[in-house]
Amino acid sequence: MGDDAAVIEPARGALDVLTTDVLVEGVHFDRSCVPPAAIGHKALAVTLGGLAAMGAEPRAALLSLLLPPSMALADFDAMIDGWLSLASAHAVALVGGNISRSPGPLVLDVTVVGSVKPRRVLTRAGARPGDGVYVSGTVGAARAGRLSLERGAVSDEALADCRARFLRPQPRVRLGMLLGRNRVASACVDASDGLADAVGQLAAASGAGITIDADAVPVPPCVAAVLPAAPGTDDGFAAALAAGEDCELVFTVPARRSRSLKAVVRLAGGVPCTRIGTVTAARSLLLRRRGADAPLPGGSVHFR
Amino acid sequence: MGDDAAVIEPARGALDVLTTDVLVEGVHFDRSCVPPAAIGHKALAVTLGGLAAMGAEPRAALLSLLLPPSMALADFDAMIDGWLSLASAHAVALVGGNISRSPGPLVLDVTVVGSVKPRRVLTRAGARPGDGVYVSGTVGAARAGRLSLERGAVSDEALADCRARFLRPQPRVRLGMLLGRNRVASACVDASDGLADAVGQLAAASGAGITIDADAVPVPPCVAAVLPAAPGTDDGFAAALAAGEDCELVFTVPARRSRSLKAVVRLAGGVPCTRIGTVTAARSLLLRRRGADAPLPGGSVHFR
Repeated sequence: MGDDAAVIEPARGALDVLTTDVLVEGVHFDRSCVPPAAIGHKALAVTLGGLAAMGAEPRAALLSLLLPPSMALADFDAMIDGWLSLASAHAVALVGGNISRSPGPLVLDVTVVGSVKPRRVLTRAGARPGDGVYVSGTVGAARAGRLSLERGAVSDEALADCRARFLRPQPRVRLGMLLGRNRVASACVDASDGLADAVGQLAAASGAGITIDADAVPVPPCVAAVLPAAPGTDDGFAAALAAGEDCELVFTVPARRSRSLKAVVRLAGGVPCTRIGTVTAARSLLLRRRGADAPLPGGSVHFR
Repeated sequence: MGDDAAVIEPARGALDVLTTDVLVEGVHFDRSCVPPAAIGHKALAVTLGGLAAMGAEPRAALLSLLLPPSMALADFDAMIDGWLSLASAHAVALVGGNISRSPGPLVLDVTVVGSVKPRRVLTRAGARPGDGVYVSGTVGAARAGRLSLERGAVSDEALADCRARFLRPQPRVRLGMLLGRNRVASACVDASDGLADAVGQLAAASGAGITIDADAVPVPPCVAAVLPAAPGTDDGFAAALAAGEDCELVFTVPARRSRSLKAVVRLAGGVPCTRIGTVTAARSLLLRRRGADAPLPGGSVHFR
């Protein structure tokens, strides 16, 4: 810091991995119900989530802030503390960035640089028919937590964990690195735009289809209860499949690597990873429910 | 592109150099008088300027955009074209980024990654007493151009070049790389926060002082005429020293390297580089005018 740019020594024999994410007040969070420390945490967490999906180890970050005049200094400090605290947990150095005043909303733009060995990098392409499809954590929790916060219904204890997943998402950095290093996953994607989107990305990039088993998808009951029910259904299950903001990984594992996956999950500290479906040769996204296949709600495959 | 992060092979034996800059509508530009293509160009140019000051070769960039709903698609296209055109001129690959809608102003956040050999990196520290202080291009032109545009006085032909320097600044990428590779500069800084600030940064980081020769500073007559005159003076010379937004380099050169500087200037395509002062042992920033020394207007040294 202090010079016009940050200088970093690349990891020996590794590739650089770069990703950036922007959090905008009024779009991604509401300052009236998200505490400043959580805003700082979230901004770094979502960016680390993108790196995790590549199997990369985060090393350094740049933080650019647009600050509205209405922001109090104490809130600014708390926001930075929230950011730095997560950075410290993942050994990420803040190496640069800038602060501008903003006539508009609070904006946080985070760029993270990480490293990964050439043959250990995870991409969206690589899923093969027969591979299992997995998701870490749960599905829809962050969106349910956000709704609960925005409605002010903080008395609902069942949603406390969902609120934490929205406010303090834990990027699956270690899981991603282990999936790549041990060559367990054949493809991986960040679920931040929703499970249906993630599954569509994997299918498109891999030139394959995916069938999801509805009963297997880990949508917590409180999430299905709080998210809006789709027409003709009695809960928010379909909404959970489409809901974004979960800081989770969706990945595929060849059958011969499924035993290694158990070891990786143990090494990653027991992050729950649930098999939710199978990669197919048919280029379609399906949801299997009570033995019948229907198009996956919210899923679309844009083959290249 | 297309995966959750961009993967770049680091240059062999080189360090990674990272820098980021943000352009905010209403702060750094006004959409009513800066064409969309110039907005895109400027956003990349200022970021490349930071890398140039380190002597680094730019390689790849991330572009994050916050788009207000009022922005027309044609303006968006022109803005991206302006960005890509400058990127192409410097062989910079667009490897990632994102687009969010914004309830506020148009925002462009650009991160550039480059590379530089370990012993060729330029920093602000390294200036020694006796070194000459140089600036590339001219001083104050971008600010004068901005004023001219905002006032709508586009009929003034003398300011056409200043408007171009505000709208389409040319980052001194090649000059910076050559100053570093040939070990000509002992220290270097980006002048984007103004000459007085740049000189203060060099002095502070190097633990030295600097005396600037007023008659040598390349403030074009039209700049001195259009910038507001400081109290007790009859032109905008002092304002030009403090004015930011010039995409120029301020650097120091040991006497024994001044002949090499001429060769570097030739290799850089004849970028004008003017000696404007000398590094001193006294820890002060002075402006010498008609044989008398006075504190440099706008200059302050925050020694570490």
